[in-house]
Amino acid sequence: MAVSRRHVAKGAIAAAGTAVAMPAIAQSMPTINWRMTSSFPKSLDTIYQGGPSLAKFVSEMTDKKFNIQVFSAGELVPGLQALDAVQNGTVECCHTYPGYYIGKEASLIFDGSLPFGMTPRQHQAWLQFGGGRALMDEVYDKFNVVSIQAGNTGAQMAGWYRKEIKSVEDLKGLKMRIAGFGGRVLTKLGGVPQQIAGGDIYPALEKGTLDAVEFVNVYDDEKLGFYKVAPYCYGPFVMEMEASINLFINKTAWASLPPYYQAILRAAGAQADTEMIASYDAKNPKALASVLKNGAKLNFFPNDVLKALKTASEQVLDEEAAKNPLFAKILGNWRAFRSEIHRYHNIADARAEIVTYSLG
Amino acid sequence: MAVSRRHVAKGAIAAAGTAVAMPAIAQSMPTINWRMTSSFPKSLDTIYQGGPSLAKFVSEMTDKKFNIQVFSAGELVPGLQALDAVQNGTVECCHTYPGYYIGKEASLIFDGSLPFGMTPRQHQAWLQFGGGRALMDEVYDKFNVVSIQAGNTGAQMAGWYRKEIKSVEDLKGLKMRIAGFGGRVLTKLGGVPQQIAGGDIYPALEKGTLDAVEFVNVYDDEKLGFYKVAPYCYGPFVMEMEASINLFINKTAWASLPPYYQAILRAAGAQADTEMIASYDAKNPKALASVLKNGAKLNFFPNDVLKALKTASEQVLDEEAAKNPLFAKILGNWRAFRSEIHRYHNIADARAEIVTYSLG
Repeated sequence: MAVSRRHVAKGAIAAAGTAVAMPAIAQSMPTINWRMTSSFPKSLDTIYQGGPSLAKFVSEMTDKKFNIQVFSAGELVPGLQALDAVQNGTVECCHTYPGYYIGKEASLIFDGSLPFGMTPRQHQAWLQFGGGRALMDEVYDKFNVVSIQAGNTGAQMAGWYRKEIKSVEDLKGLKMRIAGFGGRVLTKLGGVPQQIAGGDIYPALEKGTLDAVEFVNVYDDEKLGFYKVAPYCYGPFVMEMEASINLFINKTAWASLPPYYQAILRAAGAQADTEMIASYDAKNPKALASVLKNGAKLNFFPNDVLKALKTASEQVLDEEAAKNPLFAKILGNWRAFRSEIHRYHNIADARAEIVTYSLG
Repeated sequence: MAVSRRHVAKGAIAAAGTAVAMPAIAQSMPTINWRMTSSFPKSLDTIYQGGPSLAKFVSEMTDKKFNIQVFSAGELVPGLQALDAVQNGTVECCHTYPGYYIGKEASLIFDGSLPFGMTPRQHQAWLQFGGGRALMDEVYDKFNVVSIQAGNTGAQMAGWYRKEIKSVEDLKGLKMRIAGFGGRVLTKLGGVPQQIAGGDIYPALEKGTLDAVEFVNVYDDEKLGFYKVAPYCYGPFVMEMEASINLFINKTAWASLPPYYQAILRAAGAQADTEMIASYDAKNPKALASVLKNGAKLNFFPNDVLKALKTASEQVLDEEAAKNPLFAKILGNWRAFRSEIHRYHNIADARAEIVTYSLG
């Protein structure tokens, strides 16, 4: 103990001495006030929380000097116009799903969610070590924004259906509330994607003017009660193996920050990302058990349906690549990485989970 | 555009104005110099990198005012004495694997790695939203340290073997370099765990005084060339579905930091965690392809071997719980969470990966 006390004097206690004068000094850190518009309503509490959590992390790391006020969808800016608001400088940043803007640039979907795509973890590996970061930055440069991952929903179930899907035939004419690339895939198989506001989905399913819906996660979907009128839900969750939620920052605003505040924003994004995934991972299993207890029926797509969905998905990607060189460039890189990492996780992490569960 | 310019004046440009005076002001942020001892040699580059990366993130977030000098295993302190060095204040912090210290307190293994356990993502969910954080803090309080996740290897292959493992019988008398709980499980099935220093493994395998080895990840193992003398490797990677690498901080040192430097350490941990997983996920698939090309043979444990390993694993946990009330308390919570999340990921993320790969 004598030895350790001597060492403490060199290290920990020396630091303690320095700390005495800190609070006053810290007052001189630069004060910055930003506004963040979220694409999500507060009712989607887990996904929305990514924004306030990120703001809280930033505030804590800057002794409350860098403050980001978060506005839910519609308070300042409609949810689907968050990118525009950041791009034109109405707000400094937004918390949004990149896939909302594929009408402007389809390549954004690689930072969002693709059927038979990557998990959140695989997405991070692709960004950080697979060349994805440079490719996505090329996309974001077109929008005058810096993008930081700041949340992820994890895999989402492949929808709620009024009737069972027993064959590819059952997808023909299916009126489904499904957006983006998922909608394009459904169209290829004869389905009819619908755009319906969140609050209108339940009554439409009840009346039968809508046959199915793909919304968010089991946890969110349970609150909206879809299982009561469209009780068939489907696994495995291949149609959206993740949905990355990002912080977009106006480049002028970004450039105005000292580098250490930029670094703090990046780190806060990593924390918000991990927190949202963890939060959904803790909530979804309970929500699934709850809806199953209350009448929902979990099925798995038959293999021919899965094959048809996979084929249609790759076709949709190929068609987009044929008309969009940037998309084509990213797709080649993304597919090679996906193939490698799926092969590996099929003997490593993913297979280990499946086998462990099967052993009881 | 006129509208947006007006808005910019309130937000982004206002921030830009503030920024002008920042660099000079930032000079007054408190300077802290810490030392981090790593449990890892620089040759394990990916796992070691978690330390320097964390230090770099902290430095960047504090305008180089909070500096952490990283020492590799043995430079200041032997790798397996990192916790002791932090506990007694020799250094302020260390980057280590909690499982190294199960001889002091077996409960540390819940923050390390368990056979048939959780993936890195599931571990995070357990810590943040499953009650794990409070339980583990109770463990760390005994060691006078604050613990922050700061890396993870992901699932590790179940070893390199000179001969095939075709039945439980083949594990009897097997001399295997394997540590911790994995070693206890092997003992239950008649195997003989060995402790051999890293550099001595290859010659022992070559001579046949050692039959098998479990080391780190395919990426690291390839460099040591085990596959040349023990070519049989096994999946699925159930024996170590993760290995969490943590930053341990002396509590006195921690308390000496202003709260915003504490927050910065936490955030840097989240970044280092994500980075290490991503790095291994990018490297391991290539390493596996490389060793298979060069003669390694990938097998899967037969189902009866998997069952025996699972049964033995649960017995080892039960036996430890019977003599350690803290371990028993954590085990109950951990098992319930594991069961729920494995059930969910078996239709969600993990199953989606398996099915996507199977569809080609």
